[in-house]
Amino acid sequence: MSTFTTEIPVRFRDVDSMGHVNNAVYATYLEQARVAYFRGVLDRDLSAVETVLASLSIDYRAPIGLDDEAVTVTVDVPEIGTTSVPMTYTIETDSGVAAEAESVQVSYDAEAGEPVVLPEDWRSTIREYHDL
Amino acid sequence: MSTFTTEIPVRFRDVDSMGHVNNAVYATYLEQARVAYFRGVLDRDLSAVETVLASLSIDYRAPIGLDDEAVTVTVDVPEIGTTSVPMTYTIETDSGVAAEAESVQVSYDAEAGEPVVLPEDWRSTIREYHDL
Amino acid sequence: MSTFTTEIPVRFRDVDSMGHVNNAVYATYLEQARVAYFRGVLDRDLSAVETVLASLSIDYRAPIGLDDEAVTVTVDVPEIGTTSVPMTYTIETDSGVAAEAESVQVSYDAEAGEPVVLPEDWRSTIREYHDL
Amino acid sequence: MSTFTTEIPVRFRDVDSMGHVNNAVYATYLEQARVAYFRGVLDRDLSAVETVLASLSIDYRAPIGLDDEAVTVTVDVPEIGTTSVPMTYTIETDSGVAAEAESVQVSYDAEAGEPVVLPEDWRSTIREYHDL
Repeated sequence: MSTFTTEIPVRFRDVDSMGHVNNAVYATYLEQARVAYFRGVLDRDLSAVETVLASLSIDYRAPIGLDDEAVTVTVDVPEIGTTSVPMTYTIETDSGVAAEAESVQVSYDAEAGEPVVLPEDWRSTIREYHDL
Repeated sequence: MSTFTTEIPVRFRDVDSMGHVNNAVYATYLEQARVAYFRGVLDRDLSAVETVLASLSIDYRAPIGLDDEAVTVTVDVPEIGTTSVPMTYTIETDSGVAAEAESVQVSYDAEAGEPVVLPEDWRSTIREYHDL
Repeated sequence: MSTFTTEIPVRFRDVDSMGHVNNAVYATYLEQARVAYFRGVLDRDLSAVETVLASLSIDYRAPIGLDDEAVTVTVDVPEIGTTSVPMTYTIETDSGVAAEAESVQVSYDAEAGEPVVLPEDWRSTIREYHDL
Repeated sequence: MSTFTTEIPVRFRDVDSMGHVNNAVYATYLEQARVAYFRGVLDRDLSAVETVLASLSIDYRAPIGLDDEAVTVTVDVPEIGTTSVPMTYTIETDSGVAAEAESVQVSYDAEAGEPVVLPEDWRSTIREYHDL
């Protein structure tokens, strides 16, 4: 296996006054894909996980409209660090690629306020899932 | 003059189950800063403007909580293209920098489906405002 | 047939700092159910339709959490007016009823700024669908 | 004194594809007014408070557009119960009343899962503030 895919229905509320899915909602689609990834691959809830989003970068390729009833988000993990998980994403509709994106998530000890080493079982599960 | 600054009140709805402003809401703060910039510097409504967001990149530096009643967003335009406007941003609370970000906005002819040259009066107004 | 049912996945972004789906998001679930209703029953897009929401009333019965991966919204039309459509809703999770709600939507001529008679084919389709 | 008033800036993101503030966002404006009320009148954070929203009812009177840069929300408490606080609201723009609303908030013991008596100092502060 190498990539993880999930489908997210587009909501009327996602669309702004320009008639297209608002730019910030792409970040919500990516977050929802991470939720699905954590559930599907790691069998955990994103909110139960001590990680924080360190960076997010989105290239908008094509508008998404209300006619696009759902988007498909593909998640890949190109490599796995000791304290961080980089992820790359493609958001697609039936018309093709709507956006490409990248994020870095960092394992974080909220009390100590500093990055911590990712649990070894996560790292091996992710490595196996993506053939790393 | 060189940078544009606007204040945005944090809403209860901006905060997610982790107790911090959700990552996607940072994109909304940046968008709202662009709205204020277009109104304040160019005297125009963002929705009346034929531009699209081509890319957005956010580095999350510190969480924003409900106690941070407002954020201050600083907008800079480091250079001005013929069809695009790159923008850099800093989001700050009383505790310091919460995020740094970059975007590229492209002037766009929706009917023709292609980039068009930015109005010359915009370019000169932006250039003057930022001492470019 | 008598009621219309649609399923809406809960998003991480729907949940607020109290750990439950935010009260305003219930209104979004109801709106999304109307979108599905207009598509499914009337074969139309909500945004293509000259109606406005006149009133909305929600009774919150139980919190919805992230574990509730989706809600099921049931829509009923108890009667059909000449210019307005009242709707009643139930929002359910696997744990039972999360909310009951009512809305009134009014057919509206935006230019004239006043209610207009609902298209007769809509009224008959709705009447037939709900055995009115 | 008898009513509490707060101003909330309208965001670009609040507006939907119909070009008006989305119906669900009115609920967010009301919530934000409650946050301001709890801070201003009771000197407490809404999230630190063991209350839940039991019901919400909104009458939409007029659309709110992007030109309406802010809304003013007026909050009144017509009476004070032992376990619940009913609130009435008016949302206004420069053009007049945009909505009228009502809510009931219930003091709630999350562990016991049942309503509890409101702290007596809250009740007396609210009574005094609204001349009840």
